[in-house]
Amino acid sequence: MALNNPNPLGPWKITVYDQENFQGKRLEFTSACQNIMECGVNNIRSVKVECGAWAGYEHSSFCGQQFVLERGEYPHWESWSGSNAYHIERMMSFRPICSAVSLPLQTNHKESKMVLFEKENFMGRQWEINDDYPSLQAMGWGNNEIGSMQIQSGSWVCYQFPGYRGYQYIMECDRHGGEYKHYREWGSHAQSFQVQSLRRIQQ
Amino acid sequence: MALNNPNPLGPWKITVYDQENFQGKRLEFTSACQNIMECGVNNIRSVKVECGAWAGYEHSSFCGQQFVLERGEYPHWESWSGSNAYHIERMMSFRPICSAVSLPLQTNHKESKMVLFEKENFMGRQWEINDDYPSLQAMGWGNNEIGSMQIQSGSWVCYQFPGYRGYQYIMECDRHGGEYKHYREWGSHAQSFQVQSLRRIQQ
Repeated sequence: MALNNPNPLGPWKITVYDQENFQGKRLEFTSACQNIMECGVNNIRSVKVECGAWAGYEHSSFCGQQFVLERGEYPHWESWSGSNAYHIERMMSFRPICSAVSLPLQTNHKESKMVLFEKENFMGRQWEINDDYPSLQAMGWGNNEIGSMQIQSGSWVCYQFPGYRGYQYIMECDRHGGEYKHYREWGSHAQSFQVQSLRRIQQ
Repeated sequence: MALNNPNPLGPWKITVYDQENFQGKRLEFTSACQNIMECGVNNIRSVKVECGAWAGYEHSSFCGQQFVLERGEYPHWESWSGSNAYHIERMMSFRPICSAVSLPLQTNHKESKMVLFEKENFMGRQWEINDDYPSLQAMGWGNNEIGSMQIQSGSWVCYQFPGYRGYQYIMECDRHGGEYKHYREWGSHAQSFQVQSLRRIQQ
């Protein structure tokens, strides 16, 4: 996946550690890191996000499993991965999510908008949404798959299972022109159309 | 934890399987199950929620780790647990969440309301909230803990880590009088005040 904007101007800050529980070697970043090994660290074992929303990746160059990292403390791998069928406990690259919307207290933040399509290539039944959905089937979506997606504003994260569990797919209006027309464009780890929950990314 | 309403009238339906991927022995329920072993099954390995929102529990009698189960398909343990530090792959009891709000397409569903308190026993700084927060610190909450909570309407799930990860604590307006004044009242597995994200439970 190409990185369009490696050095955004916004207020982003992440601190990573090469041991669990914020121990070991400590590095601070305010922009993207394409390969943590080039900074003299073999792996990231804990993370503090101090500003902004970030996308973490299993492999270098923003490949492999994706993890949304919002402000807060992540003391070990399970605290950001949410776990999946295979347990390669690795995060090798990360970058700011520039189109995440800000999250003012008590407001209605409806700036995020996307369209879901039943079939690939923006075909079939469609829904426009601007809210978080822990269960797409509860909102009336007919099955456990989404064919394609158009992100009109903001950034979103889709999940394989209901309740924001399983594989994560980060979708942004300012990447791919906001168009994700087949699961092969959702990320290098995507292997099916299965999506059962999704939500806005906020910072 | 006492079960106030084991047989609600609402439209709830869950199908559980004793093998992963919806294989093996299959049982359907429309109300609470206090001990799956009494139904001739040793453990639940996959779940389909067809109607309503449910709370799953690690142990019988609604004890141990809690798992929110919203409408959709959960083919294996990681798909509902989100994983935690220890891997006892077990769900032994479950019940409907009666005060979950319904989720009509495209509406603003603001019926859920709760108050967060900085300290236990409803002391210290307080915030009233009626929306989902993937990061409490991003909304301005000062640290990674909540002292106590008052649920005024609806049902909520609080999570140990940002982005709806880690231990889950299900909080309902119609249990404990909606009052959760210390982490010991959040669930039998709660061991600290750490909460970094929370959201409404919808069905």
